[in-house]
Amino acid sequence: MKVIRKVELLAIGDELLNGQRANSHLLYFGEKLQEIGLGLQRCTELRDEPAEIVEGLKRAIDGSDLILVTGGLGPTTDDYTVGCVASALERPVRRNPEVEAAIRAFFKERGKEPTENNFKQCDIVDGAEVLPNPNGTAPGQWIELNDQVIVLLPGPPLEMKPMFEDQVLPRLVDKGWALSPVNSVQIRTMGIGESKVAEMLAPLLKGSGSKLRVAYCAHLGYVDVRLSPVEGGWDEARIRTMGEACRERLGEGFLGYGTPEVAAVILQHLRGLNKSLAVAESCTGGLLASRFTDVPGASKIFMGGVVCYRNQVKENLLGVPDCILEQHGAVSAECAVAMATAVAELLESDYALSITGYAGPEGGNEPAGTIYLGYHSPVGVWSRKVVLPGNRTAVRERAVMTALDFIRRKLEKYKIYDLLESLKC
Amino acid sequence: MKVIRKVELLAIGDELLNGQRANSHLLYFGEKLQEIGLGLQRCTELRDEPAEIVEGLKRAIDGSDLILVTGGLGPTTDDYTVGCVASALERPVRRNPEVEAAIRAFFKERGKEPTENNFKQCDIVDGAEVLPNPNGTAPGQWIELNDQVIVLLPGPPLEMKPMFEDQVLPRLVDKGWALSPVNSVQIRTMGIGESKVAEMLAPLLKGSGSKLRVAYCAHLGYVDVRLSPVEGGWDEARIRTMGEACRERLGEGFLGYGTPEVAAVILQHLRGLNKSLAVAESCTGGLLASRFTDVPGASKIFMGGVVCYRNQVKENLLGVPDCILEQHGAVSAECAVAMATAVAELLESDYALSITGYAGPEGGNEPAGTIYLGYHSPVGVWSRKVVLPGNRTAVRERAVMTALDFIRRKLEKYKIYDLLESLKC
Repeated sequence: MKVIRKVELLAIGDELLNGQRANSHLLYFGEKLQEIGLGLQRCTELRDEPAEIVEGLKRAIDGSDLILVTGGLGPTTDDYTVGCVASALERPVRRNPEVEAAIRAFFKERGKEPTENNFKQCDIVDGAEVLPNPNGTAPGQWIELNDQVIVLLPGPPLEMKPMFEDQVLPRLVDKGWALSPVNSVQIRTMGIGESKVAEMLAPLLKGSGSKLRVAYCAHLGYVDVRLSPVEGGWDEARIRTMGEACRERLGEGFLGYGTPEVAAVILQHLRGLNKSLAVAESCTGGLLASRFTDVPGASKIFMGGVVCYRNQVKENLLGVPDCILEQHGAVSAECAVAMATAVAELLESDYALSITGYAGPEGGNEPAGTIYLGYHSPVGVWSRKVVLPGNRTAVRERAVMTALDFIRRKLEKYKIYDLLESLKC
Repeated sequence: MKVIRKVELLAIGDELLNGQRANSHLLYFGEKLQEIGLGLQRCTELRDEPAEIVEGLKRAIDGSDLILVTGGLGPTTDDYTVGCVASALERPVRRNPEVEAAIRAFFKERGKEPTENNFKQCDIVDGAEVLPNPNGTAPGQWIELNDQVIVLLPGPPLEMKPMFEDQVLPRLVDKGWALSPVNSVQIRTMGIGESKVAEMLAPLLKGSGSKLRVAYCAHLGYVDVRLSPVEGGWDEARIRTMGEACRERLGEGFLGYGTPEVAAVILQHLRGLNKSLAVAESCTGGLLASRFTDVPGASKIFMGGVVCYRNQVKENLLGVPDCILEQHGAVSAECAVAMATAVAELLESDYALSITGYAGPEGGNEPAGTIYLGYHSPVGVWSRKVVLPGNRTAVRERAVMTALDFIRRKLEKYKIYDLLESLKC
C-alpha cells in the first residue's frame, strides 16, 4: 500500500499578511501537487519574524512529510528563511562558493555589478543540496531529514515555478513520493448559482455519500463541481459515469470538463465554423477583448476590438448612428446592437459581441450596474439587458462574464443555423 | 499602554488548497486590519476536514485574541465550520428562527424558493451573536469568549466584505481593540529592481536599524518600500522626513507615496494638461486599455483604444501604411510609431500609446518576448524596444507595465514642453 505523504506549505513574508501581495503560490502548488497525486494539507502564511518562522517550521516538521517553504531568500535585511531553517534544524549555515560564482556570472551576463547584499544569498543550510536558479540570484535548497524533506524556494513566481517543475518535481518522483494523479472528475458550470447547481445534482448524488467526495467551488461566473474518489469508494470508471450523468442534468449550464475558460470554448466553437469574431466595448474598457486574446492561438479567429470609452468614439469611429445615440442614449439595447453590427463591419468579422453600460460609481439614465449586451451573427442580431450588483470592478468583471455566457448560449442554441450559414460560403 | 491584539485568520475550504481558488481574503484583511492599526500575525488555510478544522481552531484559540474564520458556512454538504467551532468550544448548535425568516425573505424578494439545504445556514453556535447577511443567505457569527473573539464570516467576497466593514469593524472599535492606523510611510517605485532600490536607499537607512522597520515588496513593475515605526523608535514626523529623503534619492524611479497605480498617475498628469489619450495594441489585446479604464473618472481623459490583433485591422482600420507593414513588419519600431500616430488621429486624441510584439508562445522575425512601444505626443514621437522574459501571460503583463512606465517617464521628462504646448490652444 502506498503511503500518502502529508504536504504543507509555509509562505513567508510581511507583504503576504499586510495586504501588499496575494499568496499566489498557494494556488499554484495546489494545482501542481494534485497533478502528481499529492494534496496540500495545510498552508500557513508567516511574517518576517524569526521567532514565528522558527515556530512555524518546528510545527510543520512535527507533522508533515514534505514541507515547501517560499520567500525570505532575497538579498534584503528582512529575509530570514535560511537562518531560521538552520536554527529549527540546529544546523550551521555555510557560504557556498559555487553559488557565489553563479551570482557573479548572473550579473556579468546582464552587464551589471552585483551589490554586496546579493552575496547573502550564498548562505546554505549545512547538508542542503543547492537548487540552482537560472532566472534569478536566490538559489533553492533541498534538505533531506530521516524520512522528511524540506524545500526552500525563492518567492518571485518567475524564479520559483521553473525551479519547482525542473528540479523539485523530478526529485519527488525519484523518491517515489509522487503518486499517480488523483482520478477525479471536474465539471465547470456557467450561469447557474452554487446552491442551484447543488440542488440540480442532489437527486443524482444522493446515497453516494461515503463512496464519493463532492466539492463545490463558485468562481465569478462559474461554479465548479469536483467528484473525487475516497478510500474504498467508487473507482475511476464509476466516477466518470456519474460525471456524464451530471453533465446531462446540467444541460446548457454545463461548460465543460476540467476548468475551461469560456472565451476558449467560444473561440473553439467559431473555429469549427471557420468564422471570425470582433468586439466593441465601452464600460469594460478592453477587458472583454483581453479575455479572448488570453487564449493562445486566438488570432486565427479573433480579429480585434474597439474600446469606445467616449461617445465621440462610438459615433465617429464605430459609426453608431447619431439618431440612436440621441434617441436611446449610449447605454441602450439599440446602441449595443449598433455597436456589434458596426464593429463587425469595421473589422470585417462574421460575429461580433458588444458591451455598453454604467460600471459605476455613477450611473446615468439608469442606475450603476445597468449593462446592455449586443450580439451580431450571420443568422441574427440580439441584445440583452442585465443589472449587475457590486462596485465598479465587480460590475466590469461580471459584465464580461455575462457577455461571454450570452454569446456562448446563443452559439449553442443556433448552432444548426450557424453551421448551415457557414456551409453557404 | 495599549495592548496590541494578536489577530489570526483561518480560511477554510478544499478549493483553497487544491488550486481551484486563491485566498483573496488574506489580501483584503491584511489591508483592512492595517487601516485600524491591527496587524495580521498569521494565516492558515485548512481543508474541509472536520478534524483538521477543529485542531486549527484550538491552536488559534490558544494563541490569538481575535480569530477570523472565513468559509465553510455555505449550504452544501462540505460546509463544516459551524459544527467545528461548536465542537472546539464544547458548545451546542441551535437553529435560529430569525435567520430562518431572513432566508425565506431573501428568496421571496428574488422571486425564488429556498432549497432545503439553505436552512442548514440557520444553525448558530450557542451564545453567538448573529451577523445578518444582506447580500446572501449565510449569516456571520460573533462569538465572545473571556478576552477573545471568534468571528465567522461567509466565503464569497461580495457577502463577506460588507459584513466585515459594516458589522465587525464597528464592534472592534467599540471594544477598544482597534488602534489608530499604523503611521507608516509607503513609497512605490517603478522601473528599478528590488535589490537596486535597496542599494540606493542603503546609505540613507544605515544606522536606523533599531529605530525603524523597513520592508521591501516587489510587484510586477513596482517595488514598494514601507517604513514603519517600532516600539520606542522614530516618531511619525521623523519617518515622514526619511520618506522625503528616500523620494529624492529615487529620482525618476519614485512613482508616489502609498500604492498608486501608474495608469492613474498618467491620467492625473494629462488631466493637469487638459489633454486626452488613446491606445492601440496588438499582443496585449485590450489589457493596456483596461488599465486606464480601471481608474474611476478615466473617461474625462481616456478616449478609448483599438485592439488590432490581426494585421488586417492594423492596416484597414488604423491605417498603418502598407509599406511599413511590408518593409518593417507588424512588430517593429516603425509600426509601433505608426500605430500610436494613427490611433491619435482616428480617435482625435492629443496623446497616444501603442504596443506591438510577440507575446508567445511563438515569435516571428524576432523571438517571443520582443515588444515595441510607440508614443505620440504634441511635442514628439518616440519608440522603444524591449525584450521581456517569461511565458505568454508574463510577457503581456510586463509589456503593459513597461509601456505605462515608458509614457510616464516621457511625460515627466518633457513636462515643460507639454505644458507650453497645452498653453498654446
